[in-house]
Amino acid sequence: MKVRVTVMLKDGVLDPQGKAIAHALHVLDFGSVGEVRAGRVIELEIAETDADKARAQGDAMARALLANLVIEDFTVEVVA
Amino acid sequence: MKVRVTVMLKDGVLDPQGKAIAHALHVLDFGSVGEVRAGRVIELEIAETDADKARAQGDAMARALLANLVIEDFTVEVVA
Repeated sequence: MKVRVTVMLKDGVLDPQGKAIAHALHVLDFGSVGEVRAGRVIELEIAETDADKARAQGDAMARALLANLVIEDFTVEVVA
Repeated sequence: MKVRVTVMLKDGVLDPQGKAIAHALHVLDFGSVGEVRAGRVIELEIAETDADKARAQGDAMARALLANLVIEDFTVEVVA
């Protein structure tokens, strides 16, 4: 199964990458853009046929390696 | 409206970050993990009330700045 883990900075944590993107978009005349938050997405192929087990594995991997839980939140979706 | 742009390397483009994550997960005993692909997600607050227009803006911003279309694909979703 394919699992997608999305990692974003927690609300309230300063996001300099997002601020830089917002600034660049304003320079490019995208004036309607407000707050921008940047994050990571990791797609993992897991040798598992049960969606719940695949999701649980993705959750365990996010906690062990993919996310820094002090400053980041993550979500896990089974996509295929 | 809030728009989420997800940027991933195209299939066939070498993904060293994904390979490094896969290796680290194997070291951590997640043996069921196969291919791993890493990408970026950018959440943008757009001053627009029409979902189709917000999506079109996200698409234009991805083409102008957020994705390198030579080696990357992107998807745009309206999330709120």
